[in-house]
Amino acid sequence: MTTEAVPTPDDLAAALEALRARVPLVHSLTNVVSANFVTNVLLAAGAVNAHIDNVHEAAGFARIAGGVLVNLGTPDDGTAAAFTAAAGAAHESGTPWVLDPVGVGALPWRSGLAVDLLRYRPTGIRGNASEIIALAGLGGDTRGVDSGDTPEAAVPAAAALLAHADVVSASGAVDHLVGRAADGTVVGVRIRGGSDMLPRVTSTGCSLGALAAAYLAIAPTPLVGLVAAHAHVAVAAEIADETATGPGSFAVAYLDALYSVDATTLAERARIEPLDVLAVDRR
Amino acid sequence: MTTEAVPTPDDLAAALEALRARVPLVHSLTNVVSANFVTNVLLAAGAVNAHIDNVHEAAGFARIAGGVLVNLGTPDDGTAAAFTAAAGAAHESGTPWVLDPVGVGALPWRSGLAVDLLRYRPTGIRGNASEIIALAGLGGDTRGVDSGDTPEAAVPAAAALLAHADVVSASGAVDHLVGRAADGTVVGVRIRGGSDMLPRVTSTGCSLGALAAAYLAIAPTPLVGLVAAHAHVAVAAEIADETATGPGSFAVAYLDALYSVDATTLAERARIEPLDVLAVDRR
Amino acid sequence: MTTEAVPTPDDLAAALEALRARVPLVHSLTNVVSANFVTNVLLAAGAVNAHIDNVHEAAGFARIAGGVLVNLGTPDDGTAAAFTAAAGAAHESGTPWVLDPVGVGALPWRSGLAVDLLRYRPTGIRGNASEIIALAGLGGDTRGVDSGDTPEAAVPAAAALLAHADVVSASGAVDHLVGRAADGTVVGVRIRGGSDMLPRVTSTGCSLGALAAAYLAIAPTPLVGLVAAHAHVAVAAEIADETATGPGSFAVAYLDALYSVDATTLAERARIEPLDVLAVDRR
Repeated sequence: MTTEAVPTPDDLAAALEALRARVPLVHSLTNVVSANFVTNVLLAAGAVNAHIDNVHEAAGFARIAGGVLVNLGTPDDGTAAAFTAAAGAAHESGTPWVLDPVGVGALPWRSGLAVDLLRYRPTGIRGNASEIIALAGLGGDTRGVDSGDTPEAAVPAAAALLAHADVVSASGAVDHLVGRAADGTVVGVRIRGGSDMLPRVTSTGCSLGALAAAYLAIAPTPLVGLVAAHAHVAVAAEIADETATGPGSFAVAYLDALYSVDATTLAERARIEPLDVLAVDRR
Repeated sequence: MTTEAVPTPDDLAAALEALRARVPLVHSLTNVVSANFVTNVLLAAGAVNAHIDNVHEAAGFARIAGGVLVNLGTPDDGTAAAFTAAAGAAHESGTPWVLDPVGVGALPWRSGLAVDLLRYRPTGIRGNASEIIALAGLGGDTRGVDSGDTPEAAVPAAAALLAHADVVSASGAVDHLVGRAADGTVVGVRIRGGSDMLPRVTSTGCSLGALAAAYLAIAPTPLVGLVAAHAHVAVAAEIADETATGPGSFAVAYLDALYSVDATTLAERARIEPLDVLAVDRR
Repeated sequence: MTTEAVPTPDDLAAALEALRARVPLVHSLTNVVSANFVTNVLLAAGAVNAHIDNVHEAAGFARIAGGVLVNLGTPDDGTAAAFTAAAGAAHESGTPWVLDPVGVGALPWRSGLAVDLLRYRPTGIRGNASEIIALAGLGGDTRGVDSGDTPEAAVPAAAALLAHADVVSASGAVDHLVGRAADGTVVGVRIRGGSDMLPRVTSTGCSLGALAAAYLAIAPTPLVGLVAAHAHVAVAAEIADETATGPGSFAVAYLDALYSVDATTLAERARIEPLDVLAVDRR
């Protein structure tokens, strides 16, 4: 593990500036619960979104988008075919894409979909701890199945999923993330911040996955991109928490904060720490 | 009619405390207009939600959920099959479930779906007055078809639907609800409160149906559960109305109030009155 | 071009008063991103909405609705069949309907759908500049394909689409709109106002299309109806902009303003200007 490989505040500031300057186009295939909020989060943060989940258009658009989000929240036979088409096209054309394995583990049909999608090698995987652990287990990586459900407990599973993806994160009270440094060594990062209100507002996790797709479109490396997405969200949620009086006002303030956070604020307030993946893994 | 069987303020307080302590998992099959708001209402009030409306997973999840919501708002062939699967599995496994017959009466295809679903005996039915009247008429209960469209006018239809469900409510300016006491006699309840802004915000009715599924998961009886859901909503809407300047700010304040209302406030502010169902019925 | 045919402030005030008095029922077939916001915009402004996009019910409901919106945002095979059914029934029964050609031009499958739908002669077409230009090009109106992407640049394309529709608008920083006067001459209108925040909130365009369907249900002419919808939105967005601190608070204030704007405010604040369509066209 190389501490030097952990993204710095300057890396985060540069990523946010690149996001605002380049306004990446995300192609989202997300669930019906989150579709509106995901798009509003992207627009507030500085990207744009096209939600295209029909099989006729998904592959073609994944080739021209800046980044693709495949979120398994409310699949049916039609959108499942579009997921495969989009992921396959993203993989072939080099478009970065994020897999959000919503509900994997608890729900057998979509668990099969998720395993199938791993063959298109997502650039990033983002889930909650249970989903990351379940996906690692289903992928044949047996280290993933013996753990609890905090993000820290999901670190070995996340590390195992690096066989299938460049970066993997488990979000929760403190987000945990693993990726690889330029020399191929595994890098772990812990992102503090956020708010107790985040789990009280639906689609905050799904929209983090979408924002990850936006950052992967413009960041120098997948590691910087996924860490920057987590940091942007964590800082905005902290700011929103200062004024919110409940989940309704929090959601409004959160969108405002995603919009108003600038590179200086992000660099100053982000709390990124190196994480010793092997130490967690040995427990 | 036994006035003693009408839930008391203490019953409501206990139900809210149980909701907050047990955080029931709702399985929602709801429409694309309401999916986001339904989930936010559940999270704000103190439950959690999984929206699963594909036929591959709906039955299995209905068996393990705390309560199920089947809302007919935007059905298609795929989700209609999932409705049947979920309702059937809920019925078999004893999971309480709520039928929200959106648009029944005005729209023939879904009216047929609703009648078919009655065979799985919903624990609760919640609709607006016209939907309750139409559903009772379609169910062969002819008393339901000769009425107007206020909740009070829907009481005979609601009572007729007790042939198919444990509790039935018609919401509107003043919500009206019927169920059965422990001795089997019909109990009627009127719930005052709410806000003129409720019909100006979409999915407030749909999310009441979802909250009913959450309360049915933890309440001692279906009657207490459905009354508690209506009371929680009525009190939160009254509180939100005090600060709102339009439907946008009302929706935000409503989510905040669903979250901040505690058992004491609910018991103090809920306006529950006994309703003489037979008297209404004889008109 | 007859300047006299441009709707006056009094025309707009009368249209808003008719909307509030008659509360038209919109039948929306819109995308999963916008379904919630579209409905909230209609309720806030003074209409009601039923989102019905299954093929079993779409035609029947289009016959009884006040106005229909067909929005191509997230089509699949099922909803595409419903679009055709609804548009066909609206055309046959004389229900005014609006086509919102989301993504047309960039996405080939839905571009074909849009061209097919033109045969049912939409009352109004509303899109962004690129969509209007692309649709005109696909419709065989070659004047449409050589332009840029500002609303002004879309005016020749919009005028060409008058072969297929009564009124056509391209929205953007300054909305541009074309229709026909009573004597058949082409009328152009420019609507100023709005807010830089509008493109930072998803579905503001889609909900303008829905509001157009509501106004077409009650306005004396399609031209007055579509101009009134644009003016209502432009004034409400200006008002919301005065207090918003980001896209989250803007969306809330926008719904409040759509609700609170009255006929006097609309007439005073709307900035409607005649547009010389032929002059633009000759450039």
